[in-house]
Amino acid sequence: MKNKQQNILIIGAGLCGTLLALRLGQRGYKVSVYEKRPDLRTTEMASGRSINLAFSDRGNKAMKLVGLEEQVKGLCVPMHGRLIHDKNGDTVQSNYSGRKEEHINSISRNDLNALLLNEAEKHAHVNFYFNRTCKSVNFEQTTALFHDEGSQKDFIEDADVIIAADGVGSSLRRSYFLDRDFLFSFSQDYLTHGYKELSILPNENGDYLAKKNALHIWPRKDFMLIALPNLDGSFTVTLFLSYDGGLYNFNNLTTEEKVVEFFKTEFPDALLIMPNLAAEFFKNPTSPLGTIKCSPWHYKGNTLLIGDAAHAIVPFYGQGMNAAFEDVVVLDTILDMNLGSWEATFKAYQKKRKIDTDAIADLAMDNFQEMKEHVIDPIFQQKRKLELLLEKTFPAHYHSKYAMVTFTEDLDYHVAMLRGRAQDRAVLTLLSNGTIKLNPKPTKEDLQKFLEQIKHDTNQILENQRHASLKY
Amino acid sequence: MKNKQQNILIIGAGLCGTLLALRLGQRGYKVSVYEKRPDLRTTEMASGRSINLAFSDRGNKAMKLVGLEEQVKGLCVPMHGRLIHDKNGDTVQSNYSGRKEEHINSISRNDLNALLLNEAEKHAHVNFYFNRTCKSVNFEQTTALFHDEGSQKDFIEDADVIIAADGVGSSLRRSYFLDRDFLFSFSQDYLTHGYKELSILPNENGDYLAKKNALHIWPRKDFMLIALPNLDGSFTVTLFLSYDGGLYNFNNLTTEEKVVEFFKTEFPDALLIMPNLAAEFFKNPTSPLGTIKCSPWHYKGNTLLIGDAAHAIVPFYGQGMNAAFEDVVVLDTILDMNLGSWEATFKAYQKKRKIDTDAIADLAMDNFQEMKEHVIDPIFQQKRKLELLLEKTFPAHYHSKYAMVTFTEDLDYHVAMLRGRAQDRAVLTLLSNGTIKLNPKPTKEDLQKFLEQIKHDTNQILENQRHASLKY
Repeated sequence: MKNKQQNILIIGAGLCGTLLALRLGQRGYKVSVYEKRPDLRTTEMASGRSINLAFSDRGNKAMKLVGLEEQVKGLCVPMHGRLIHDKNGDTVQSNYSGRKEEHINSISRNDLNALLLNEAEKHAHVNFYFNRTCKSVNFEQTTALFHDEGSQKDFIEDADVIIAADGVGSSLRRSYFLDRDFLFSFSQDYLTHGYKELSILPNENGDYLAKKNALHIWPRKDFMLIALPNLDGSFTVTLFLSYDGGLYNFNNLTTEEKVVEFFKTEFPDALLIMPNLAAEFFKNPTSPLGTIKCSPWHYKGNTLLIGDAAHAIVPFYGQGMNAAFEDVVVLDTILDMNLGSWEATFKAYQKKRKIDTDAIADLAMDNFQEMKEHVIDPIFQQKRKLELLLEKTFPAHYHSKYAMVTFTEDLDYHVAMLRGRAQDRAVLTLLSNGTIKLNPKPTKEDLQKFLEQIKHDTNQILENQRHASLKY
Repeated sequence: MKNKQQNILIIGAGLCGTLLALRLGQRGYKVSVYEKRPDLRTTEMASGRSINLAFSDRGNKAMKLVGLEEQVKGLCVPMHGRLIHDKNGDTVQSNYSGRKEEHINSISRNDLNALLLNEAEKHAHVNFYFNRTCKSVNFEQTTALFHDEGSQKDFIEDADVIIAADGVGSSLRRSYFLDRDFLFSFSQDYLTHGYKELSILPNENGDYLAKKNALHIWPRKDFMLIALPNLDGSFTVTLFLSYDGGLYNFNNLTTEEKVVEFFKTEFPDALLIMPNLAAEFFKNPTSPLGTIKCSPWHYKGNTLLIGDAAHAIVPFYGQGMNAAFEDVVVLDTILDMNLGSWEATFKAYQKKRKIDTDAIADLAMDNFQEMKEHVIDPIFQQKRKLELLLEKTFPAHYHSKYAMVTFTEDLDYHVAMLRGRAQDRAVLTLLSNGTIKLNPKPTKEDLQKFLEQIKHDTNQILENQRHASLKY
């Protein structure tokens, strides 16, 4: 491992693979990255992947690590909260935090990827090869079989280490799975909902047709629409809808009339600013939503899965890219330990990291319910109001689950999940049974008492859970 | 569906596929069964699959359904309890139930399968084709691609319905998985332990060298040995051991000396009656242990997964075959409903059944801990003593979790799991905190009070769980 002339082959020049190539390049390794798509800096991106993403503090920690924090800021559209649209088109804002500086960002996948590619290519020993599709990986021999989309020829690359950052359809993961002599635990869980990307374009002056600095949500319990702002004045809109349940679904929305009728009934204010709705609806693909978990991520010291290739999650916490970036940060801290071999490094990495990627996968599923359903529940709205008050009044002493997951980048996901879930239960119980009342407006002394009660009850819940999870 | 001339193709003539063929034959369907292995009635069975199995009340319910209850009895060796062997070779028996009539049975996979084959073949419209390996299923066209192991030629079979009972490596499940346009949720979870079958042969008079009517266990916390009696005086012995953890494991037991040393240290009394140990150890394969879950089991009304093909479980509850047989019973009750189409039938079947096969999968994992570890724990031993007393004293009013799962064939697995786990927690807590004492020997009045307290606490735990699983 000390020999930095080792050849590291990375499969996939998406966000995670490129960041990893950049970081390994900075650490002095010789890195070759093979990507099946054309170079996105010189080609129109294919549709079917989400155009913009939520970027927050865990992702930003990775940008700090590679020295790109300032440059990334220029690509971000801050979103301070959810703007919830009801069926009449009335809106109410629910901020993400009571601390002013805490917000998430909408960022273009393409722009961010291009920035990382440009930065990685500055290292002479980091090289990118586009239009090379990985067909399989021989993880005993540490070789990968590629198909050159240009010459249409197959070729084999040999490397000292192969790291697959090739996303949800990972070729290395498939090779792990198909090999019968290798005990590979694996799960893929699909939702009965799929998603489709649509858009709200800017007006002729390039201005935003809806509030810019917010994540728009039209929650309708069984389905929802969301919209995230882009730098150019447009919004990327995503419809999350059942394939076959309910009155309207992807399987029965087969005519323009029916799509427009659906939007007129459910999202009338959105329809007004989506003149291209019907055309886009039938042009753009409907894509599935699923969670992938697997183990082990590595085979000996030869190969490693990272990012979505190792743990794909549903998008409802806005943490997919942030988690993949955090993978690189965690792997970097393990490399700092100089464990002496890639096998020891990969083992230590998975041991540290898997509990956290499992946790964010589960949290993301929780948030699907929250976004499409709970945000319109009166008791949930009281909870958010209380939490924002507490965060504003005691910024150093109260963090909602959302804040722990999204803005507390040094807190491991699994700790955020455990504490956050217990705290949610405590807060909701205290509001339901009337121990905490928000009417009349609580004084600072009231809030101080609420805070203490919540901390006490949260700890009690955690304590009970510890007992319950003991043997038997 | 009313047209009984429809062609039903079953993949796999193992226990589940053959039982299903028999039952569908009895219902009047035309059934063709394709099996990759030779006919086990005329060929020596290949090694690698467990030779004997635990047969209990849920399996027996299926035998009643097809009218084979009496014939199966002749194949059974009753096992009344666990006979636990310590490192000195001392044993203690722990019965499965306080009700005399409740026991499990050791049964030969081969004998039972042969009985089912003979019975199914009595129906002229049920036909078996051996040495035909299914390579894939086209579930849109309802056709299956087979390889004839005799002629070495591939051929395609067309059917009205294809039901795959082809076990853990199911070809239909693989076809579901590999098809990219089909949202197939799937998980395979391997244990870090594997297993190896060994044997204890009878003496020259054909007598058993260990107690006949018991399931022998040598529990050693991190690993265990078990032995089940066969009709011929032999025992089938199974070693469950980590692949690579601990002092001795499958990866480092590479010499005869080391294997013997391991058994001498850990299972000295077993070693005395296993003269062939070393030879068998290196001849017999080491096989993995895993849980498979998936959904959906069916594609439209064309294809269905059943038995291990749909839900493979670890063997520690002795319920694998019983669950597969119960699948056939449940499918039969759904057929009785005359839902009008195979699609409606398969949908109703999965809706009713999946929650129960998920439950037995989880229960089987629980029992791994129980068998290798808890059975030697003093508080667990007290619990079993108390439960046997309660079952004996109040046979109609107390059922341990084990009894609910194993002997209460009309109680769904998921109900047995919920109630059984809550009751286990209640009993262990009452024993731990001294509310229930077994010393001095409790009177009938004491036991009556214990019973009421356990019922009360169990209901309380279930009530709390219901609250906790409410939204948020």
